[in-house]
Amino acid sequence: MLQEMSKDDLTSRENELGNQFNAACQAGLKLDMTRGKPSPEQLDLANPMLSLPGDGVFTDSDGVDCRNYGGIDGLPQMKALFADILGCEPQDVIVSGNSSLTMMYDAVARAVLFGVPGGEKPWSQQGTVRFLCPAPGYDRHFEITSHLGFELLNVELTDEGPDMDRVEVLASDHAVKGIWCVPRYSNPTGITYTDEVARRLATMNAAPDFRIFWDNAYAEHHLTEEQQPVPDILQACRDAGHPDRVLMFTSTSKITMAGAGVSAMAASPNNIDDTRRHLSVQTIGPDKLNQLRHLNFFKNIEGLRAHMARIGKILKPKFDLVNELLEHNLGGKGIATWSQPKGGYFVNVNAPDDCARTIIDMAEKAGVKLTPAGAPFAYGLDPQNRVIRLAPSFPPLSDIRQAMEIFTLCVELAAIRKALN
Amino acid sequence: MLQEMSKDDLTSRENELGNQFNAACQAGLKLDMTRGKPSPEQLDLANPMLSLPGDGVFTDSDGVDCRNYGGIDGLPQMKALFADILGCEPQDVIVSGNSSLTMMYDAVARAVLFGVPGGEKPWSQQGTVRFLCPAPGYDRHFEITSHLGFELLNVELTDEGPDMDRVEVLASDHAVKGIWCVPRYSNPTGITYTDEVARRLATMNAAPDFRIFWDNAYAEHHLTEEQQPVPDILQACRDAGHPDRVLMFTSTSKITMAGAGVSAMAASPNNIDDTRRHLSVQTIGPDKLNQLRHLNFFKNIEGLRAHMARIGKILKPKFDLVNELLEHNLGGKGIATWSQPKGGYFVNVNAPDDCARTIIDMAEKAGVKLTPAGAPFAYGLDPQNRVIRLAPSFPPLSDIRQAMEIFTLCVELAAIRKALN
Repeated sequence: MLQEMSKDDLTSRENELGNQFNAACQAGLKLDMTRGKPSPEQLDLANPMLSLPGDGVFTDSDGVDCRNYGGIDGLPQMKALFADILGCEPQDVIVSGNSSLTMMYDAVARAVLFGVPGGEKPWSQQGTVRFLCPAPGYDRHFEITSHLGFELLNVELTDEGPDMDRVEVLASDHAVKGIWCVPRYSNPTGITYTDEVARRLATMNAAPDFRIFWDNAYAEHHLTEEQQPVPDILQACRDAGHPDRVLMFTSTSKITMAGAGVSAMAASPNNIDDTRRHLSVQTIGPDKLNQLRHLNFFKNIEGLRAHMARIGKILKPKFDLVNELLEHNLGGKGIATWSQPKGGYFVNVNAPDDCARTIIDMAEKAGVKLTPAGAPFAYGLDPQNRVIRLAPSFPPLSDIRQAMEIFTLCVELAAIRKALN
Repeated sequence: MLQEMSKDDLTSRENELGNQFNAACQAGLKLDMTRGKPSPEQLDLANPMLSLPGDGVFTDSDGVDCRNYGGIDGLPQMKALFADILGCEPQDVIVSGNSSLTMMYDAVARAVLFGVPGGEKPWSQQGTVRFLCPAPGYDRHFEITSHLGFELLNVELTDEGPDMDRVEVLASDHAVKGIWCVPRYSNPTGITYTDEVARRLATMNAAPDFRIFWDNAYAEHHLTEEQQPVPDILQACRDAGHPDRVLMFTSTSKITMAGAGVSAMAASPNNIDDTRRHLSVQTIGPDKLNQLRHLNFFKNIEGLRAHMARIGKILKPKFDLVNELLEHNLGGKGIATWSQPKGGYFVNVNAPDDCARTIIDMAEKAGVKLTPAGAPFAYGLDPQNRVIRLAPSFPPLSDIRQAMEIFTLCVELAAIRKALN
């Protein structure tokens, strides 16, 4: 334990690690653990799609010519597949293009420009708009709302979901218009929301045009057999008499081809009708051939889940290796804690307070790029400067091993230097 | 000539045509000439794409893995292909998803939310925003700007482009923020803008955040060997000292697969940088595999043009048949005039004043659906109620023949009834 070490021991260890660090800086490595990108091996599993839908195949099961214009909200079978993923009915679903982030941006931008069902006015005509950002969370969610000029409010993300005591207090201010949620294997801590958190989100006092942005990005992305259930927020909102409060999103980006997947949203009839009305102005409709390609590849939800099990087998050893090296190099030293996620794409490390930025800078000098410090927080500001997000999906195991040796070295060195100061 | 017919002749002809019309209404036909959709035969020409990019093919010529995330503005080769289509440089281009209409909507929505380079404030903070709608024009353009709450101003579309005397007067009001243009084979009259119109658009006094939305939707869509040149508006704007004034758009929707094409915009460095900055918040990037699919199918602009020549051979007989039946049934009768476009997707008919709505309603009763009356005008209101847009691309020749027999019957009958009143 660092806390039990004498000053001499600390100095001697600092010396030893400092030399290792300097050697690492000389080695000229170039390793990248910044973003949750699928690895080539994972993508290879979807390679049969490169020749799909296939020669002469362009009609869906209803006989619709998927090559032509028409159909604003997706093929019926694709809606059904997404309904299975999101736990809702096909008629609740709108299928869109290759980016669920775009669907979320568009939903927020439409709320600004036009308002949402149940709201009196567009958000742009309501003065300051505030948005809740459970943190650590997904930087690109927060960026959408800061880009649109909202005031972001950090809320602590606990192991059960956002700190609901705090959320309830903040949401009672009706200038607060929404909250970003990744309910399953949350980016980056890997936690899954509890039913109780969902119930409180659904029932709490909030503006009539408050929206829960429920990004179920990792709906099918398990690393173990033990699949943590995700709350049925749509039903919870209906039960609470706030059926329009939630917008759910997901995509196949981390299922098939990251840049060439299919995205979807699901919500109440009011929200879906309203969205469809705007979409009929906004677009000629989604790429139906890519939907057909996905349908022909998976056939159904069982096919998709079998595919995800194969992806899980590629990802699991990477997460195991990250955990093994964290445990081996930092375990029992009283320096850091970290998540052991049962799904998703990230490992979250809590370094000593005030050390995250230093550690990430050091790692970069030694050739290991990490997600920028603070990224998982609103405005990129981690109040304790301690959270570091590791993304082990993309690099091969050999790179992860090298990167983690350097990373843990940096964590320990920074911790010791802090203790010596 | 209708104008020379006696009342008795008119009555007798009205009787004859009325009987034919009643018979047509009994026949229970179901023909559709409403939208500019490619026909299945046309789409068949792109069927090899259904198996592209092909087994194991997923890298572009720079070795980029097109399956993964990354690349906000398109593959370099795809930019080059669109630069050839739009007559600009690859670095002027941003490649997006399957809908250029969405690119235009997004560009307008961003101007509302954030403003544009050279503008002082977002359009949303400048009071009433006005937009110029050369008419007859494309209904879905006008719909974007009315949906966003702008005031639409009709401007007559002449054979050379918008009536520039009028445009110059209107644009000097700096609440006027833009103009919709289809510079080549304009929807629906088929005219192509002259260099002089482009020069005046580029040089006129207008708000610093005025934008020409230059939708070159039919850039490669010729029906004859005689390919009318389209003005170089980007250069004209540069020459006039207003390099940021124009945003150009196009897509492959009416080249490959209507719903699964690739869209692009091109503009000045200021506009492109600004757009890219917003896109980095808005999306994970475009579908690069669909870009690769297009590149592998066409190879280069020559391949694309050879493909368009094959499409032209399918479309030409349809346009010829429309013209033949208009000429045969209405020629020399002093009732209607119509366009004989050298490209694009539409034939524009000018019926007698105050008759378009009646004719379209009659045709529908006789089983022929046409574009709603007024659609090519701002707010759907044709001030003379005389313009009818015919879209002959989708139906087979036999349907076009039947539809045109009924249509011309309705035109003549409406004209005679008007003369009798």
